[in-house]
Amino acid sequence: MLKGWTKMEEKMRDLKQRLSEIHDLEMANAVLGWDQLTYMPPGGAEARGRQMATLARLAQEKMTDPGLGKLIEELLPYADSLPEDHDDAALIRVAKRDFDRLTKIPPQLIARVYEHQSRCYMAWTEARPNNDFEKVRPLLEQTLEYSREVANCFPGYEHIADPLIDWADYGMKAKNLRVLFDQLRQELVPLVQAITSYPPSDDSCLRQHFPEKDQIAFGEQVIRALGYDFQRGRQDKSPHPFTTRFGYGDVRITTRVKENDFGEAFFSTVHEAGHAMYEQGCNPAFDGTPLFGGTSAGVHESQSRLWENVVARSREFWEYYYPLLQKTFPGQLGNVTLDTFYRAINKVQPSLVRTDADEVTYNLHVMIRFDLELQMLEGSLEVKHLPEAWNERYRSDLGVVPPDDRDGCLQDVHWYGGFIGGQFQGYTLGNILSALFYHHAVLEIPSIPEEIRQGKFENLHGWLKEHIYQHGRKYTAPDLIRRVTGRDLDIQPYIAYLKRKYGELYSL
Amino acid sequence: MLKGWTKMEEKMRDLKQRLSEIHDLEMANAVLGWDQLTYMPPGGAEARGRQMATLARLAQEKMTDPGLGKLIEELLPYADSLPEDHDDAALIRVAKRDFDRLTKIPPQLIARVYEHQSRCYMAWTEARPNNDFEKVRPLLEQTLEYSREVANCFPGYEHIADPLIDWADYGMKAKNLRVLFDQLRQELVPLVQAITSYPPSDDSCLRQHFPEKDQIAFGEQVIRALGYDFQRGRQDKSPHPFTTRFGYGDVRITTRVKENDFGEAFFSTVHEAGHAMYEQGCNPAFDGTPLFGGTSAGVHESQSRLWENVVARSREFWEYYYPLLQKTFPGQLGNVTLDTFYRAINKVQPSLVRTDADEVTYNLHVMIRFDLELQMLEGSLEVKHLPEAWNERYRSDLGVVPPDDRDGCLQDVHWYGGFIGGQFQGYTLGNILSALFYHHAVLEIPSIPEEIRQGKFENLHGWLKEHIYQHGRKYTAPDLIRRVTGRDLDIQPYIAYLKRKYGELYSL
Repeated sequence: MLKGWTKMEEKMRDLKQRLSEIHDLEMANAVLGWDQLTYMPPGGAEARGRQMATLARLAQEKMTDPGLGKLIEELLPYADSLPEDHDDAALIRVAKRDFDRLTKIPPQLIARVYEHQSRCYMAWTEARPNNDFEKVRPLLEQTLEYSREVANCFPGYEHIADPLIDWADYGMKAKNLRVLFDQLRQELVPLVQAITSYPPSDDSCLRQHFPEKDQIAFGEQVIRALGYDFQRGRQDKSPHPFTTRFGYGDVRITTRVKENDFGEAFFSTVHEAGHAMYEQGCNPAFDGTPLFGGTSAGVHESQSRLWENVVARSREFWEYYYPLLQKTFPGQLGNVTLDTFYRAINKVQPSLVRTDADEVTYNLHVMIRFDLELQMLEGSLEVKHLPEAWNERYRSDLGVVPPDDRDGCLQDVHWYGGFIGGQFQGYTLGNILSALFYHHAVLEIPSIPEEIRQGKFENLHGWLKEHIYQHGRKYTAPDLIRRVTGRDLDIQPYIAYLKRKYGELYSL
Repeated sequence: MLKGWTKMEEKMRDLKQRLSEIHDLEMANAVLGWDQLTYMPPGGAEARGRQMATLARLAQEKMTDPGLGKLIEELLPYADSLPEDHDDAALIRVAKRDFDRLTKIPPQLIARVYEHQSRCYMAWTEARPNNDFEKVRPLLEQTLEYSREVANCFPGYEHIADPLIDWADYGMKAKNLRVLFDQLRQELVPLVQAITSYPPSDDSCLRQHFPEKDQIAFGEQVIRALGYDFQRGRQDKSPHPFTTRFGYGDVRITTRVKENDFGEAFFSTVHEAGHAMYEQGCNPAFDGTPLFGGTSAGVHESQSRLWENVVARSREFWEYYYPLLQKTFPGQLGNVTLDTFYRAINKVQPSLVRTDADEVTYNLHVMIRFDLELQMLEGSLEVKHLPEAWNERYRSDLGVVPPDDRDGCLQDVHWYGGFIGGQFQGYTLGNILSALFYHHAVLEIPSIPEEIRQGKFENLHGWLKEHIYQHGRKYTAPDLIRRVTGRDLDIQPYIAYLKRKYGELYSL
């Protein structure tokens, strides 16, 4: 008995050693990726692509090593023998899930898919500015074929999108998401109609000249207060904002600044800091293992959206910060009232581009994409008809029609650099969860809104750390939601949040 | 015949593939190292150490793979069958040299040595500020043991330091270096004595307040003119200046700025740009192979010193640049004459610290270290007597006595983070070679000094690229020197350079 146990401990050490080596390769590659997007000189591009491909291949080889698979299989009974909640049991199960996912796809197919995705991405970078959907259409058709072929490596699914959704939001299914998104749409469409029956808010106060240096300093002052730890992170500039991490002690964010638009840098800084605080708050014992990180795309997005929207677009937040912002930009905002500013940052207006969308209409953009990718996968929508289908949905759902494909079906990189399927649901899940988690935080700590009004975030940050951040990937998203809320995913708190906030703003 | 040749071509492709993978791992690790010293937040240190160790271990495994050794052996006859000057022949021979060097040391010994060196380095970082040689003495004694043990993995040497010297300056031997350095010392000592019989130059003009931003802009303007390509590089700040490269298209430098000392950032920027131009000028076809890079520590240092000293401390250079510098710093230098400035940047004064030493006394510092490491390896100097031996040599060679070990035998990291042996000769070889190469450049293109006076560097840069940079590691340093000069290493041009320059400065 003791002997068998000791043997399992040895295997466990062996597993952690293997996983830690894979993790190191992935984190090293993340450093190369960060540098590529922040400081790398133009001449570095070619070699960098090769170096990153080499690290990815070495990690892939180690992740799919049959020896690792055997070890995991041998450890499964040990996982079952441990208490349900034991970290090692979670580690073994997560390792098995990752291993199965990677090894069920033939290596030759993976290689072909990566090569194709890289080619398709390059074509998209030219096709979008030239508004030339036809140029990428044949490649996108191939992407659809590959997406089906990869999904079919996971037989037994209910919907062909399910294996692809699993990669980003494990445990979510097309069927349930459709039900959820339909409920949401039924609530959102009348809300948007009610709001847009009023003239849109005047947000010209945000479109003045705000010097970059001051914008960055103000944003960093805010996220430091929210709980982002600059001892274990930093912010740099990049063409598109992102969060990346190289370990528990090094979780970085980037931003981009528009000097004629205050919202651009500020809300992206808070958004990325939300992602980053999630990773910074993970149990440090998980560092170097696959338990480190966020449990799903949806839960990750919930943390960015909670801080960006629920907190940093709230009236309470600006009751504290607006006087400080006015001090930073006295010429620009000295004569702008808090109410005008608050309305400006919460302006609702149906628009063409997802990433520019406001909090209310944003989900309509997401659900259009979600539906279209399911239709393409099902075969009820051919790629060649995507532009018309896209435009028709924008007309019916948002009341706007893209004048071209550049700001239509070519606007997002996702399908052109990855698969068709599983790409977008996480954004709306994130919005739903942001309000759901905040709702439960306030149920437990009712003083949170008042604390926000005083520029204090320790209790909210602490609650998120305890209930969400620290667990990393230990619990799947559905399990985590049940642990936090006592039930399955529920959209009502999100609906209530939107109705309360925008009902008050527009006296609906 | 054709079949055998095709087979060799296949093996050659296989070799390049293996070497390229190793190269990618090394370059990736260099990116991690650059980030560690420039932008990494404090919290990132622990994981970064682990990640870099993992990449180094994976590279090491691949570098010592018996399959690689077999492949190289099989390719040796092919190398011999190729023209002497063929790139593939050079690649095979360099790969063999690298492979032999690594595989002759038992892996367990390498692991023990790395671990020890890392421990010794950590102890040194505390011992130096505390002036506590005794704290690192036992570790340094172990370093000496390991240095001997590693040298003894290469039997057949003439002097026990030779295998260690080979790592940095392949083909150089303790015996020849001693002869060379003795000749040099015989010339330098009377020169220093003659100079120091005059009062030292007044360099107070350099010790004014020079704002960081302007210093960096001026330095970057200069190195861009010298030929450093910012499309394939960049400059950042770090605690100690260094050059690193991640490929032909990405060779970076760092600097540090002292606002109360103009020379600090400026000359280090030019120095590092010299190293970097060497790598930027390598044949791009060598990228991703062990032929990429510099051929030896001495030749590398010659390129930094040529630009830093021979060019950027020359009167010609400042005839062009001093008016521009005065425009940048009118308050500080507007009333300082070119002659005063020129004397200030060429002030000669025996001092305690190598890295602060002027061009003339610098080599005396190096030769003290070189002699002491040979004595320790030979067993004629015990580590416990190093402080006295060090101080005695400073007294006799430079006429100064360190008040403590901090600025005595604890000042350089080399022995405390590496081996004893082979650590210092490259610095003086670099000085000798800087004047030797410049001498030959001017023999071929006599207009170079006049071009420098006009701020034009294309011909000098082009000559260096053609004769030195492009060859990377294709030729060993002794071969390269013979190719460039038609004979073996000769110290006379360096002596002549110093005598002419300082003879004129001090009317000797």
